[in-house]
Amino acid sequence: MKVIEIKKSVFAENDKDAADLRNELKEKGVYLLNLMSSPGSGKTTTLIQTINRLKDRLRIAVMEADIDSDVDAVKIKEATGIESIQLHTGGMCHLDADMTRQGIAALGMEDAELIVLENIGNLVCPAEFDTGAAINMTILSIPEGDDKPAKYPLMYETCDILVVNKIDALPVFDFDKARMEQYARARNPKIEIFYISAKTGEGVQELADALVQKVKEWNSK
Amino acid sequence: MKVIEIKKSVFAENDKDAADLRNELKEKGVYLLNLMSSPGSGKTTTLIQTINRLKDRLRIAVMEADIDSDVDAVKIKEATGIESIQLHTGGMCHLDADMTRQGIAALGMEDAELIVLENIGNLVCPAEFDTGAAINMTILSIPEGDDKPAKYPLMYETCDILVVNKIDALPVFDFDKARMEQYARARNPKIEIFYISAKTGEGVQELADALVQKVKEWNSK
Repeated sequence: MKVIEIKKSVFAENDKDAADLRNELKEKGVYLLNLMSSPGSGKTTTLIQTINRLKDRLRIAVMEADIDSDVDAVKIKEATGIESIQLHTGGMCHLDADMTRQGIAALGMEDAELIVLENIGNLVCPAEFDTGAAINMTILSIPEGDDKPAKYPLMYETCDILVVNKIDALPVFDFDKARMEQYARARNPKIEIFYISAKTGEGVQELADALVQKVKEWNSK
Repeated sequence: MKVIEIKKSVFAENDKDAADLRNELKEKGVYLLNLMSSPGSGKTTTLIQTINRLKDRLRIAVMEADIDSDVDAVKIKEATGIESIQLHTGGMCHLDADMTRQGIAALGMEDAELIVLENIGNLVCPAEFDTGAAINMTILSIPEGDDKPAKYPLMYETCDILVVNKIDALPVFDFDKARMEQYARARNPKIEIFYISAKTGEGVQELADALVQKVKEWNSK
């Protein structure tokens, strides 16, 4: 398993650097998806399920950011067979554009159509740093509660797609879908919401289809 | 509801400042508990359940740190009747000792025996900053998965107590208690583990009794 020790960024102006990276990736036809969530919301399992429905339609690679373990990248590779590397942030709680760039360079897949960056499990810091991604996606799992969009506003403002995971656990938890949607749309009226269970596979095909559509639109513009 | 806008610390040396705060609190007989966890692991519900089993035995106050909402402090006050204030970090992902000191001053409860600081929901940043607390406690909820102590090592190294919450959901999730304990003890052999359901109340009395014991020991030394 390839493990990359990410260095702290040298760029002071992350927003500028992120815009540059986005343009470079656009020219290369690479769609970068920045995936964020709390720890334990099911980022890796969701990725595996989604990638298995996408890998025959798109050339995909995954960068797994983690404080210092490499279990996720190994898991992704074993379960999907696609190229996957681990980025170690050395304790840092987020990735910025320059750190993302280091990962993409290490990945060395110039012909990828979709690169997924699994960001650090954290609802605060990753939302503050533009990674240069074409799209931001966050996962909220049912057990976390319907109030999360009210409590972590910036995460919901910056995300284009909200995946609500672990819907198979709905009967066990008090989770008011309408209230959650109201909070989320108050932060971001345009947010697209998908309900899935990465465990049972329910709803994942719809998410996969939507992503294929977005990658195609990105490349046709 | 009292809401305090916390200012960024002026102290460069947080460790020194935290040690000073710990000594000051020790002299006043105040036991400060720093409660950390992922978003949605059940910090507030656990607190309510625990406080309701402690409030006749100890003078308690709560400081709820949050990015910018005040729902938790209101909830605590309504459900327990004890003094509770909200600390706004203005986007900051953790509290350090000076920020904690600002909260304690605003609380104005010199005769408190136990002050609980509910830190920002985040497994990365809060673990890096000593708040001056006598004890660090983290909550891991069953739906988050048994691998969290392996993935967020510093959180487990710094915590004295691990509360495993939502055990009523054990039948719905693949959660290997033995594996989780192995990961947690690898990071911190002395960690004390309590299994509870804040929803049903199971196990909360044992946690409450242990905390009373710790507060008494702290005040007798």
